[in-house]
Amino acid sequence: MIPRYTRPEMEAIWSPETRYRIWFEIEAHATDKLAELGVVPASAAKAVWKAKDMEFDVARIDAIEREVKHDVIAFLTHLSELVGEEARFVHQGLTSSDVLDTCLAVQLTRASDILLEGMDRVLAALKKRALEHKMTVCIGRSHGIHAEPTTMGLKFARFYAEFARNRERLVRARAEVATCAISGAIGTFANVDPAVEAHVAEKLGLKVEPISTQVIPRDRHANFFAVLGLIASAIENIAVEVRHLQRSEVREAQEYFSPGQKGSSAMPHKRNPILTENLTGLARLVRSAVTPAMENVALWHERDISHSSVERGIGPDATVHLDFALHRTASMIEGLIVHADRCRENLEAHGGIHNSQRVLLALTQAGASREDSYRLVQRNGMKTWDEGGKLADHLKADTEVTALLSDAQIDACFDEAYHLKHVDTIFARVFG
Amino acid sequence: MIPRYTRPEMEAIWSPETRYRIWFEIEAHATDKLAELGVVPASAAKAVWKAKDMEFDVARIDAIEREVKHDVIAFLTHLSELVGEEARFVHQGLTSSDVLDTCLAVQLTRASDILLEGMDRVLAALKKRALEHKMTVCIGRSHGIHAEPTTMGLKFARFYAEFARNRERLVRARAEVATCAISGAIGTFANVDPAVEAHVAEKLGLKVEPISTQVIPRDRHANFFAVLGLIASAIENIAVEVRHLQRSEVREAQEYFSPGQKGSSAMPHKRNPILTENLTGLARLVRSAVTPAMENVALWHERDISHSSVERGIGPDATVHLDFALHRTASMIEGLIVHADRCRENLEAHGGIHNSQRVLLALTQAGASREDSYRLVQRNGMKTWDEGGKLADHLKADTEVTALLSDAQIDACFDEAYHLKHVDTIFARVFG
Amino acid sequence: MIPRYTRPEMEAIWSPETRYRIWFEIEAHATDKLAELGVVPASAAKAVWKAKDMEFDVARIDAIEREVKHDVIAFLTHLSELVGEEARFVHQGLTSSDVLDTCLAVQLTRASDILLEGMDRVLAALKKRALEHKMTVCIGRSHGIHAEPTTMGLKFARFYAEFARNRERLVRARAEVATCAISGAIGTFANVDPAVEAHVAEKLGLKVEPISTQVIPRDRHANFFAVLGLIASAIENIAVEVRHLQRSEVREAQEYFSPGQKGSSAMPHKRNPILTENLTGLARLVRSAVTPAMENVALWHERDISHSSVERGIGPDATVHLDFALHRTASMIEGLIVHADRCRENLEAHGGIHNSQRVLLALTQAGASREDSYRLVQRNGMKTWDEGGKLADHLKADTEVTALLSDAQIDACFDEAYHLKHVDTIFARVFG
Amino acid sequence: MIPRYTRPEMEAIWSPETRYRIWFEIEAHATDKLAELGVVPASAAKAVWKAKDMEFDVARIDAIEREVKHDVIAFLTHLSELVGEEARFVHQGLTSSDVLDTCLAVQLTRASDILLEGMDRVLAALKKRALEHKMTVCIGRSHGIHAEPTTMGLKFARFYAEFARNRERLVRARAEVATCAISGAIGTFANVDPAVEAHVAEKLGLKVEPISTQVIPRDRHANFFAVLGLIASAIENIAVEVRHLQRSEVREAQEYFSPGQKGSSAMPHKRNPILTENLTGLARLVRSAVTPAMENVALWHERDISHSSVERGIGPDATVHLDFALHRTASMIEGLIVHADRCRENLEAHGGIHNSQRVLLALTQAGASREDSYRLVQRNGMKTWDEGGKLADHLKADTEVTALLSDAQIDACFDEAYHLKHVDTIFARVFG
Repeated sequence: MIPRYTRPEMEAIWSPETRYRIWFEIEAHATDKLAELGVVPASAAKAVWKAKDMEFDVARIDAIEREVKHDVIAFLTHLSELVGEEARFVHQGLTSSDVLDTCLAVQLTRASDILLEGMDRVLAALKKRALEHKMTVCIGRSHGIHAEPTTMGLKFARFYAEFARNRERLVRARAEVATCAISGAIGTFANVDPAVEAHVAEKLGLKVEPISTQVIPRDRHANFFAVLGLIASAIENIAVEVRHLQRSEVREAQEYFSPGQKGSSAMPHKRNPILTENLTGLARLVRSAVTPAMENVALWHERDISHSSVERGIGPDATVHLDFALHRTASMIEGLIVHADRCRENLEAHGGIHNSQRVLLALTQAGASREDSYRLVQRNGMKTWDEGGKLADHLKADTEVTALLSDAQIDACFDEAYHLKHVDTIFARVFG
Repeated sequence: MIPRYTRPEMEAIWSPETRYRIWFEIEAHATDKLAELGVVPASAAKAVWKAKDMEFDVARIDAIEREVKHDVIAFLTHLSELVGEEARFVHQGLTSSDVLDTCLAVQLTRASDILLEGMDRVLAALKKRALEHKMTVCIGRSHGIHAEPTTMGLKFARFYAEFARNRERLVRARAEVATCAISGAIGTFANVDPAVEAHVAEKLGLKVEPISTQVIPRDRHANFFAVLGLIASAIENIAVEVRHLQRSEVREAQEYFSPGQKGSSAMPHKRNPILTENLTGLARLVRSAVTPAMENVALWHERDISHSSVERGIGPDATVHLDFALHRTASMIEGLIVHADRCRENLEAHGGIHNSQRVLLALTQAGASREDSYRLVQRNGMKTWDEGGKLADHLKADTEVTALLSDAQIDACFDEAYHLKHVDTIFARVFG
Repeated sequence: MIPRYTRPEMEAIWSPETRYRIWFEIEAHATDKLAELGVVPASAAKAVWKAKDMEFDVARIDAIEREVKHDVIAFLTHLSELVGEEARFVHQGLTSSDVLDTCLAVQLTRASDILLEGMDRVLAALKKRALEHKMTVCIGRSHGIHAEPTTMGLKFARFYAEFARNRERLVRARAEVATCAISGAIGTFANVDPAVEAHVAEKLGLKVEPISTQVIPRDRHANFFAVLGLIASAIENIAVEVRHLQRSEVREAQEYFSPGQKGSSAMPHKRNPILTENLTGLARLVRSAVTPAMENVALWHERDISHSSVERGIGPDATVHLDFALHRTASMIEGLIVHADRCRENLEAHGGIHNSQRVLLALTQAGASREDSYRLVQRNGMKTWDEGGKLADHLKADTEVTALLSDAQIDACFDEAYHLKHVDTIFARVFG
Repeated sequence: MIPRYTRPEMEAIWSPETRYRIWFEIEAHATDKLAELGVVPASAAKAVWKAKDMEFDVARIDAIEREVKHDVIAFLTHLSELVGEEARFVHQGLTSSDVLDTCLAVQLTRASDILLEGMDRVLAALKKRALEHKMTVCIGRSHGIHAEPTTMGLKFARFYAEFARNRERLVRARAEVATCAISGAIGTFANVDPAVEAHVAEKLGLKVEPISTQVIPRDRHANFFAVLGLIASAIENIAVEVRHLQRSEVREAQEYFSPGQKGSSAMPHKRNPILTENLTGLARLVRSAVTPAMENVALWHERDISHSSVERGIGPDATVHLDFALHRTASMIEGLIVHADRCRENLEAHGGIHNSQRVLLALTQAGASREDSYRLVQRNGMKTWDEGGKLADHLKADTEVTALLSDAQIDACFDEAYHLKHVDTIFARVFG
């Protein structure tokens, strides 16, 4: 976790305190059921819950772990220090991974919930700005080259649609990692009744893992991190768009620049798109979790522990950085300054050649072959590009064109409303 | 595409012939609707369908493309060579990407269907072998070390469950890429009515893309390739298990070895797990498509064409290699020789120390502290490991143990049925 | 290999014909030495060379392989069909991998040589254009925002420097994969004398692999593909620069556009940077080989064959696509149209605010505190940005500024030669 | 950075304190040269050095940064708080990146030095164990299947050779990132003389960056992280070998198990290869830095800042985790328990079929065709494999074999020294 890209809410999920608290809940609920099944004394279950409002001493647990070199044993030892003798019945028939993997499931679902909140904030911001700029006309670009008019609202709307898809993916990925496994050393429930698993699952809001092998299968986690990679890529998609719009030559949009902020130590006039550049980098970082998560799937036999160090890294890092990135994305969109006037200037900068397609159609419909129409449009388009002036004027001066189209027909090709007539249709599709 | 890892059915999806045939269908259906809308003459729509049963001349299209440097124009030129003059109305108001991206959607859904067939074959094989070996007892291993008994059937069952999850993921990913976009140069439908898109979508069995920008958004494809990466990892998971089981020292399973097959030029006795090693490599190859697919998401403005060369590679490669790998996986599982006798030998090789956990519980329940129980079990377990003999005998000779447990109680800890009592429960969860 | 991104020269390295030809040379040279050592009859060595000018029948070898399921045995069987009975002495004491891995070494070194030629062509083009545009002044940009003047020549020069570094890396990576291993089934030379390896290595221009284990260690190959990934990233670096320069709003450079070429089916005026967009995608594709190549390093024990399917993919694909990309990069640079006039226009578009840094220094040297200087420059810079006009004029109208600097001193801050005074120094560093 | 996989020495390189200390040195040396060149007063240079033995107040700098949102300005402001008024001359003509990138170069070279120490420790351990077990015979395995004898020493030796190659790669990668750039806002030295860069470079033990563009080109860093990925893969290679050797069925080696250590909470007898499983995971983690580092290469124009957040992550993480992994690898190798007796048992477990190749050669040399020899060896090899017994005995009972070979000739095929005769040769190649 990089401190400056960390929000406390998400960081807290990965703290030792939280982890031990979740372990405690798993063990306590399990002991309840074990007592009910008569495997351990009822008094034991009661005793364990004494720790409910006690604080676990992280430093003490660390000290024990250094000696026994086993984290769960260290925790259980400390638990018995807190609640006494009866604690020896805790964890009966369980395996460390029952606790660790179920805990990870809880952490990832909590992380998902925070990420979903972040996504909702991004979605709300995108929708608001989309509606606001639904008819703010600007030039659409393919290959970085002016194409035909579109609107700033459509830009926001497409990012909204992508985020909405990713939200659904995350909801599903969350459901997929939300499983509880308490199945013992090799997943056979030899030493622990499946009823314990069912009980703990219900208490923690998880589903039962249908088949585990000491560990929960890692394809669930790989799928989860792949979805984080997709969300990161969606953020990059927005970021790259804003960076382009903020270029000196384009200036159609600009990240909000607070009064106290300095853009550059050397060039005080500069207003740099540093938030979106930062987001571009964070996207790369989050995405880098995908491959190791997939490499974690093929564990040896019923389990090896190679996945663990990977998850100690990517678990906190990918969720924390993505969480930060989502909120930075949201506030960037909320504050984004849209320069409608610059949109207009850029749109009109090239003499209307973005209407070439319409002229092409008009010529075809006027009876010219596709090849001829293309040649005529290309000739005048290039003239406009190279020499300046307006395409309409060049067309009106081209006798091969005027043989087919009247001046009025040419002018009709440059009517802006033509391009905007289906914006409502698209908005209805995206926002319902 | 690596020829030896290619099945003709999947390869055909990516041939120029198939591509041009799909392009034709898109253009022909679009022209139908354009005619209905009065945009082009009805005769044009009729004319286009003349090419329905004609063959497209790939070499001719290639030759035209070399001149005009544009694939769709090359195709349209050839189409007009086939159906004549009226073809000039084809593609009216459309953009190349309308055709290319919708074609890719068709290709990926067809590829999905073939992959789903392959997955179903794998699932069927896994289920059959799981039921067959439901009670074939073998040692379960964590960290590569003997742990507690499990069954070969449970191994197959867990791979089944993972494949079933991946099947659901692929069904969803297929639905996500199955969209049609015919929205013109910048996605605004300026030159083509949304009704055309709706018509073509329906005819091709696709959904309408709610918002496109000349191109269909690439998160759909990135998600698709991520799912392929997950399936590849599931194959690797099976492959690694089989490779372990086939090791000289383990020999619990073995890939089917045909009579004519030679294992090694130098060591004729060898029966190598070459299919599963090959699958391990193919998994890496398929997985390598995930990152570039995610890098494709952030295109510039309304589109740049950087994704295209990536998809020309990973589109065919990832689907073709995964398809091959699925069928190789299926036939490998179908033919896998399971050596139940070796499973038994390995299970009993270490004097029953895999029952340590049960002894531990018995001691605890007999009143020993967790720490004491652990120490006693560890002492006798290590003795068995280092000196051989049976753990039960060592325990019976340990006076600290016998002070707590009778010989009968010790023997009860080594009852195999104890480990298998919940196999039915797990099978019911997995197979219903 | 994607046909359209394939040059025949590189493709040929990976053809079956080439592979069998290299296998033959390895076997023939090995047999020579075996004969010299008295292991096989001298007549055998002589017999083998009869195949030197014969053609290997690829279809026949394929047919044999389908039966025996072993490629090297299939080849040896065919060889004996060609040269007769004496061929039974060929391959004596060797293992398939001796042939396969040494062959791969030959292929990768040949591929390296072709790649180095491609890099040299790129380097020559970059140098030529750098010298040509050494003093073509344009605005330098950080964060996409105008900063201070630089020259087009410096852009080419920095790409040259990066390519020169990558060239060195490839020369080293080539040397690292150029090893020959003929060490037998497990690398102990039990059945083949090290002298055979030394002889074959010398004949093929390779070094002896110091320690092999049936296979050549895969870190050599992983390093090789990592360097290809770096070269691909360097190509992407150039491509992204050109795509930016060709944007409608920037237009400082443009890919060469041949007379017959059509830019877009819908917008005939467009001149799209499709070569560099294509190169951007190819870079992603080549880079995707890096991770699987690294996953290939950790083979099981003395070898497993999982690396093989990976290399059948990435071996040809990464070298062929990179080769194509290098030549496309070279011709793109060779033909790139640089619009010096547009460079000038863009440079002067913002009233000279790119000289803010100089004004800041002048103010500081005139006695203002850093904070005050910054404030004054920022104030006038923002005014220029927001309201237009020239920064020099705004400064001259700001009494706080004129209290510190005379008009002449202000004007001196806007002298262009100031920015170019060290261009020669940099060129001398880069080009010597 | 994951705390448990962090050694303080490497962590310190990435602390704010270290970073500010390096920034200070860069600024102070630069000011010296600026004073010498007469750009700033000599008194300023003298004043700056007053901070040499002062402590920078990290919290204070953070507070300033929160206000000005610029890290270098925050540092300079704090510096002026420490040394007073004269500090206004510091950083004259420099750009933030001059300081940041040169600082990163210092950090990466220091990190390299620590990594090289770690590698040297691994190399020393590998060499020691290689010499110790040079003639500890064990079975070599290809495809996980017994092949021919090798020695434990050869296993250590091949890892040594791989580490030695990686060491050279790291030495070169270190040299490549060890450059200093002080070239101003756009790399043209407009506001700062190249002599300043040369002076600072010399003082910090760096080379001058030949051409920079505000930033040092990122291919240098991408190359660096690729080499870290290779080293991580080499660690994985060792780790996978040890995990295999420690399997219950193999037990030829075992990680050192300290007296107080508990293997599993559930199965006290278990001695799990948790260090090497952990290293396998750490390798995946370190390797995940390679792709984002390569994605960092193509910055926009003269620079964008997207690389920065990536490097804030992978810079510390990859070096810290690799450093930890190197020392864990070293101590694991140092303490590794090699069970020579188990090596012997496994070697002899399959009746000597690992000598099949020799029998094959003997038969061929006795006049049998390659095909016949193969058939005879395969027949008896499979019999040994399926039925047990010794291959030699089966051969002696096969009349087709005895027609060609005497019993003495058969026995000669099973002489172990035959396999070891070139071990010295290989050791001489590896260790000189």
